Amino acid sequence: MGSSAPNFVDCEEDVSFHGWMGTSPTSPLTYQTFKPKNWEETDIDIGITHCGLCASDLHTLRSGWGDTIYPCCVGHEIVGHATRVGARARPGIKVGDRVGVGPQGYTCRASECECCSRGRENYCPRRLGTYADRYPNGDVSYGGFADFCRHDSYSVFSIPDRLASEDAAVMLCAGATVYEPLKQWGAGPGVKVGIIGVGGLGHLAVLFAKKAMGCERVVAFSRRLSKAADAMDLGADEYVATSEQEDWAERHASTLDLIICTVSEPRMPLQQYLGLLRVKGHFCQVGIPEEPLPRLDTMPLILNGTSISFSDSASPANIREMLELAADKEIKAWTQVRPMEEVNQAIRDLREGKARFRIVLENDARGT
Amino acid sequence: MGSSAPNFVDCEEDVSFHGWMGTSPTSPLTYQTFKPKNWEETDIDIGITHCGLCASDLHTLRSGWGDTIYPCCVGHEIVGHATRVGARARPGIKVGDRVGVGPQGYTCRASECECCSRGRENYCPRRLGTYADRYPNGDVSYGGFADFCRHDSYSVFSIPDRLASEDAAVMLCAGATVYEPLKQWGAGPGVKVGIIGVGGLGHLAVLFAKKAMGCERVVAFSRRLSKAADAMDLGADEYVATSEQEDWAERHASTLDLIICTVSEPRMPLQQYLGLLRVKGHFCQVGIPEEPLPRLDTMPLILNGTSISFSDSASPANIREMLELAADKEIKAWTQVRPMEEVNQAIRDLREGKARFRIVLENDARGT
Repeated sequence: MGSSAPNFVDCEEDVSFHGWMGTSPTSPLTYQTFKPKNWEETDIDIGITHCGLCASDLHTLRSGWGDTIYPCCVGHEIVGHATRVGARARPGIKVGDRVGVGPQGYTCRASECECCSRGRENYCPRRLGTYADRYPNGDVSYGGFADFCRHDSYSVFSIPDRLASEDAAVMLCAGATVYEPLKQWGAGPGVKVGIIGVGGLGHLAVLFAKKAMGCERVVAFSRRLSKAADAMDLGADEYVATSEQEDWAERHASTLDLIICTVSEPRMPLQQYLGLLRVKGHFCQVGIPEEPLPRLDTMPLILNGTSISFSDSASPANIREMLELAADKEIKAWTQVRPMEEVNQAIRDLREGKARFRIVLENDARGT
Repeated sequence: MGSSAPNFVDCEEDVSFHGWMGTSPTSPLTYQTFKPKNWEETDIDIGITHCGLCASDLHTLRSGWGDTIYPCCVGHEIVGHATRVGARARPGIKVGDRVGVGPQGYTCRASECECCSRGRENYCPRRLGTYADRYPNGDVSYGGFADFCRHDSYSVFSIPDRLASEDAAVMLCAGATVYEPLKQWGAGPGVKVGIIGVGGLGHLAVLFAKKAMGCERVVAFSRRLSKAADAMDLGADEYVATSEQEDWAERHASTLDLIICTVSEPRMPLQQYLGLLRVKGHFCQVGIPEEPLPRLDTMPLILNGTSISFSDSASPANIREMLELAADKEIKAWTQVRPMEEVNQAIRDLREGKARFRIVLENDARGT
């Protein structure tokens, strides 16, 4: 980030933030001034100290999931300090508190909303992404590779003291996204879990499944053998390199109760992954390929009573629960903390598979 | 069937049954003598009075799901009377009782079987189909378009007195296959259900969902308008003709909690079907296409928290429960009872979509 002090003044019209903005599907990010959404008294401004770099950021910057609203400031694993708290903000957060935001920047909270009223805010039909989304009044949401961000207070989370900021940042998207389906589909003692993809999401899935939830067995799957030692260090009981080990699908057939698939490669061997499941096993896809999934043969899935789900982040209640659990169980994400000015290099490194396992960009200490 | 008395004698080696056999993927069925599996004291012989005609029979006869063992006697919606009961048969069935067999003719029942020991016999890895399957000793299983059949007594069900034989027959595959997922995925008051395909399975799914389970709303989907009146008579609240009504996917988007898909047409508009689901809705596929399913875009499924399952028939406990429920709630299948000699014409009629909704073939009364 630039060294100038943030231009944050009382007169709302003059407020501007500064961040690393993508301006086209191929351009590198440039540091620019931007105008946040118009202030509402339910909002919180956050002086950002840390923001994790997620594969979603790359998909969005290149318009891989559809046309992105440019200029775009990505980053949805945000941690910092509350610098302004609206008069009608969610109770419990005051200026100076350490707080964070995940992939969702707004949910409607209406009593008639079938999602918000049932603890499924992460599926609220009026929800808005933390970045690259448009409010009903035309405002655009901007993410965390910036000095400040502004989001609805009900999408802002208090960070437990025991969690380091870089770890908490990574929990808010990667952690949340794997925690909710692990919980929903019964991860715990006696359960054998497969984690496909050992990256930002996958490494946390291994940590949560084994160390926090006590699964009987955790098998990590990635394409190459190069992540084997790290996966075992994370707590995996076994590691499978699907591009470099023969007969992996046969050797591990019908051995797992639950699989969390974090990869977004559309050419993934999905039918073989599903063949790893025991009878009535469940496969949850959380990675979002830019192209359609492979076609599936129905017969083996019918004969095995297989089920498949698709899951988007986590509810606020589950995010709070996960943060507490991560603190209690001392779940320590594997992060590489780098200065936010290195965001373009960080993007290249993530794209080339060099992250071990989550790059977190840090702003200069500014006393926020 | 032929008019000759069944050649059923005490000397096991001489036992032969007679049935309508497919001998190649394209040949019509011919009435032949066949030797049933070797008798075991856990078996029951059934003098067949009725057998429903299921789409599975057509798939199998043409080797659509893989190489079929010929000659093949299909039919797995069998009702008749027990004519011989083994000394170690499942307690509760005696000679003369009205009994039936569904798609599964054998399960291992081993205490170490993770399926049989947990009430999931329908997924037992050693289970055998009622027809066209091979026992470990090399014997072949033969189905219900015959005078007699022989199956493991633990796959034989007593038929409640209040159920007509033709209705009970249809329940044993079509009913079971839709009942288990309706139950598992919460069909009942307050739940809005879609049934895709209004045929042998689909018409029973409408009946069970509405009349037996009290779902708030049942929407039936088929390709053409020609089944609309029948579907409404069955109890559907609405009927959608996907090939003849425009904008059906948009008009019904996000309206259903649960969908049971009974069709086996691989070119089905699966993504549009899934778009009919509300947040966290569930889609269960019970039809088995001979070709892979269409590719799916992940993003809309992630955003909606969709889940998909694949389900094979029902457990014995659920079959018994369903038979009692069908009797209690007076679920009356729509059957067309025809002489078993007409089996080849019945197959042509089913293939051409003329069944309303299940053809049941009946043997001459023989006092069995």
